[in-house]
Amino acid sequence: MRLLVVGGDAAGMTAASHVRRERPDTDVVVVERGPYTSYSMCGIPYYVGGEVDAAADLVAKTPEAFRAMGIAVHLRTEAVSVDVAARTVRVRDLEHGGERDEPYDLLLLATGAHPLPKPLPGLAEYGHVVHTLDEGEHLRRHLDAQRDVRRVVVVGAGYIGMEIAEALVRRGMSATLLDRSPQVLNSLDPDMAAIVERVLREFGVQVRLGEELLEVRGDPGCALCSSVVTDCGEYDADTVVLAMGGKPNLAVARTAGCEVGPSGGLVVDPQMRTTVPGIWAAGDCVESVDLVAGLRRNVQLGTHANKQGKVAGFSLVDAMDGGTGDGDAAFPGVVGTAVTKVCDWEIARCGLGERDAAEAGIAYATVAFEGTARAAYMPDPGVVHVKMMAERGTGRILGAQLVGTGNVAKRIDVAATWCHLGVTAQQAQLFDLSSSRRWTCIRRCSARPFRFRAGEAAHRPEGPGAAPARA
Amino acid sequence: MRLLVVGGDAAGMTAASHVRRERPDTDVVVVERGPYTSYSMCGIPYYVGGEVDAAADLVAKTPEAFRAMGIAVHLRTEAVSVDVAARTVRVRDLEHGGERDEPYDLLLLATGAHPLPKPLPGLAEYGHVVHTLDEGEHLRRHLDAQRDVRRVVVVGAGYIGMEIAEALVRRGMSATLLDRSPQVLNSLDPDMAAIVERVLREFGVQVRLGEELLEVRGDPGCALCSSVVTDCGEYDADTVVLAMGGKPNLAVARTAGCEVGPSGGLVVDPQMRTTVPGIWAAGDCVESVDLVAGLRRNVQLGTHANKQGKVAGFSLVDAMDGGTGDGDAAFPGVVGTAVTKVCDWEIARCGLGERDAAEAGIAYATVAFEGTARAAYMPDPGVVHVKMMAERGTGRILGAQLVGTGNVAKRIDVAATWCHLGVTAQQAQLFDLSSSRRWTCIRRCSARPFRFRAGEAAHRPEGPGAAPARA
Repeated sequence: MRLLVVGGDAAGMTAASHVRRERPDTDVVVVERGPYTSYSMCGIPYYVGGEVDAAADLVAKTPEAFRAMGIAVHLRTEAVSVDVAARTVRVRDLEHGGERDEPYDLLLLATGAHPLPKPLPGLAEYGHVVHTLDEGEHLRRHLDAQRDVRRVVVVGAGYIGMEIAEALVRRGMSATLLDRSPQVLNSLDPDMAAIVERVLREFGVQVRLGEELLEVRGDPGCALCSSVVTDCGEYDADTVVLAMGGKPNLAVARTAGCEVGPSGGLVVDPQMRTTVPGIWAAGDCVESVDLVAGLRRNVQLGTHANKQGKVAGFSLVDAMDGGTGDGDAAFPGVVGTAVTKVCDWEIARCGLGERDAAEAGIAYATVAFEGTARAAYMPDPGVVHVKMMAERGTGRILGAQLVGTGNVAKRIDVAATWCHLGVTAQQAQLFDLSSSRRWTCIRRCSARPFRFRAGEAAHRPEGPGAAPARA
Repeated sequence: MRLLVVGGDAAGMTAASHVRRERPDTDVVVVERGPYTSYSMCGIPYYVGGEVDAAADLVAKTPEAFRAMGIAVHLRTEAVSVDVAARTVRVRDLEHGGERDEPYDLLLLATGAHPLPKPLPGLAEYGHVVHTLDEGEHLRRHLDAQRDVRRVVVVGAGYIGMEIAEALVRRGMSATLLDRSPQVLNSLDPDMAAIVERVLREFGVQVRLGEELLEVRGDPGCALCSSVVTDCGEYDADTVVLAMGGKPNLAVARTAGCEVGPSGGLVVDPQMRTTVPGIWAAGDCVESVDLVAGLRRNVQLGTHANKQGKVAGFSLVDAMDGGTGDGDAAFPGVVGTAVTKVCDWEIARCGLGERDAAEAGIAYATVAFEGTARAAYMPDPGVVHVKMMAERGTGRILGAQLVGTGNVAKRIDVAATWCHLGVTAQQAQLFDLSSSRRWTCIRRCSARPFRFRAGEAAHRPEGPGAAPARA
C-alpha cells in the first residue's frame, strides 16, 4: 500500500505522520516543491524583520526528522498532473531536472495556496512575493544585501502585509502599505480596522488605502526599482513586497478532475475526501464549512491545515484497512478565528463580521465598547476595543472582534467556542468566566454587550441564563 | 413597595441598582456594616503592597453615586436579625450607637463571608484579618506606621495569602506563608500547586506547609508581636496576617429561618430565592450548583456575586409586579473558574481537580504537559504548564489548570466554557481556536492532551470531532 502526499507543510506532513505511525507497513511518500517541510508561515514576517534569526527556526520538523520516521520526502519536487486511471502523479525534479511518475494507491493533495499577482509592468522584476519560507528567505537576503533599500512598498494590507510593514519600520526603513480596499484587514469591520490603521500610522507605517498598484518602474538590470505607480500617483520605492492573499493551488487537482467549489477551494467531505475516489485533500487548498454562516469558505490557516491533516490521516488509515474511509474523525468546520499582532496591539476576530452577516442574510445586532485589559485599578491596565454580534431574534452569538494592548488576543477563543456551539448572548453572560483578579475584558465581553433586556437580541426562546445544554 | 438589601458590595448593589432602574417608584434601602460599597476585594493585596495607591481606587461605585441614583445607603449599619412576621430587620448603627427596625416588603441578604479565626492565644491582639477593604486599610496603615515591621507571618496559602505574601516581599519585608494544608492553593492539584510553591520560594517567600498555627506571642501593650508558635516550632514575627478562607455570614439569615445547605451556604433556587418567602440571597453567602460535579458548593467570588445580584434583581422586580418571582433570568451555576497571579506567573483553574472528581465519584483521566505561551520561535516565548481532566467513557472535559508566564490566565475561559456546555475532549480538539500567530497554548491544550486515540477517554459515543451540537 502506497500513500502519496503532494505538499510537505502542515496538512500533508500531519497526515503522512499519522498514517506512518498507525500503519508502519505502508509506504508514505511526500513530494514538496520547496526546500522545507512543516514550517510556520506566520513567522515569516518576524524572520524578514530579524526578530527571528534563522529560517530554520521556523521549521517545526525537518525533512530529516520525517525521513527518520520512515517517510520518503522528496524536496524541490513539483507535482504536475494526476493520471487517475493509472494511479500515478507526474512530478518534476526542480533541482536536477527531469520528470517521473510516482505511483499511489491513495493520494492526498495538500498543495496549499499562493498569491497570483496580476501581470503588471515591472512586477515580475521587482516584486517580492512573501508566502513561502524560501520566498521569505529571498526577501531577507535581498534586504540584507541591498543596503540602499530605504523605501519599501508593501502591497496588501492583510495580516502578513501589516506584519511585514511593521518589521520593515523596525529595520529602519520607510514602509508604505498599499491596498485597493478602503480599509486594512478586510476580515475586521471597518470601525475596528480603523483602530488598527491608526496604530500602524502612529508606528510610522504609511498607509495608502483605496489605491491600486498599476506599475513598478526601474532601470533595466538594477536590483532595486525606482518607483511604483498607482491610480492615485507615483511614489519613490526601492523594493516592492507582494503580500496579497493566496489562491488555492489547484493545477494538479484539476488534472485529476476534483471538483472546485464556489469559494475557489477543493470540495471535500468531513473526512477530507475530494469528489474523486482515492484522492483526499487538506489545508489551504480546500473549502470548509463556515459553521456560523452555514456556507463554505476557503480559509488559509495552519490551525485548520493541522486538524484537516489529522482527520485525513484517520480517513486514509480506514481506507487502507479496507473501510469506506469514514475513519474515526470528522472535520467540523470553521468559525473564522484569527489573531495577529501589530506593534504592541493584538487583534483577534472570530465568526461573522457585519459584511459576512449581511451577505449570509442573517439579521444581526452589534455592540461595541472599550474596556481595560486588566482591572482598571491596576497600573497600566491596557485598553481593549471589543465588538460583538448576535443574531436578532435568537440572540445566537455570531462573532467577536478585539483590538487591544496587553496580550488579549487569545481571549477570542471563548467567543470562538460560543460560535461553534451556537451559544446565545443571554447564556454567555452568565457563564462562569474568570475575572476580578487583574483581568477583565472577555467577561465584560459577555456581561456588557447584550444586556438581559437588549431589545435587539431579546427574543431568547430559552430565556436568558437558561441552564446551558449539556452534551 | 420597599426593598431592603443587607450588604452593600457586589451582589447587593447590583440587585439594588437593577431594581432601582427598573422600578423607579420603589424604595430601595441598603444597610452595610462597613464604610464602603462595591469595591474589589481582589485588589486588596495590591493596595496593601502599595501597587494600588488608595483604598478609594478599589471602589467601583461610591455610596454617593448610589444615592444619586435614588438608593438609600446606610453605611456602618449592621443588620442583627429579621422579624419575618413583622417584615422588619433589626439594625445597629455602628457609628452613633443605637438600634432600629428597618421595614421591608422584599428582603435581599447579601451578607458575604468572612474568615472565622480560631480563638488562639494572641490572635485577637496581633492577627490582622484582611478580607474587607477597611481591614485592608487597617493593615496598610499598620505596616506604614510601624516601621519596625520586618517579619510577617501570613496564615493561609490561598489566593489572598499568596498575593499578600508577595506584596510584603515587594515592600522589602520577610514574609512567611503558613498553611496547615500540605500544599498552597488547595483549588489546584498538588502537582500544579508545587509549581506555584516553587515560584513563591524563588521570589523569596518562606513557605511552611502542613504546619498549624497555635499561638501568637508578644509583650502586652505592644503593637507588634514577637513570635508565632506552630506545631512545628516557634518563629520570630512582628505581625500576623490572617488570610484564611471566608465562611458565609449567616447570623442574620439564621434568625429568619433560611435553610443552610451542607456546603455551609444559604440554599437558594436559580432565581436566588431562599427557602423563606420574601427573602432572597446572593453572593458569597449562598451555595451554587457546581455544573461539572452536579453538587452544591459555596464559592466566594465577585464574578458570581455580580451575576447573582443581577438575577436576584430580575426576580425581585417580577415579585414586585405581583409575579411569582421567576423573573426573566436564572443563575445557571458555576464551574469553579478562578485566576490569580503570583510574581510573573499566572494561575488559572476551572472545573474539577482530581480530589473533586474522586469525591464526586466521577471516573477521570488526566493529562499534563508543558508548552510555550507564544510560538516557540519567538524571543521569550514563555512557559505554560497545563493539566486537563476528562471523564472516562464519555470524554467530557471536567477541568483544566494552567500555571504559566506571559498573560495566559484568561485562556482558562475556553475550558470553562467547555465545562459549562459538557464539551468532550474529542470535540474540543477540532474547535477553531486561534493559534499560529505568536500564540499557542490553549490550542495545544485542546489539540494535545486527549489524542483521538487516548484510550482512557476514548469511548466517545458521539465520535471524535463530531460536529458540535448547536443550541
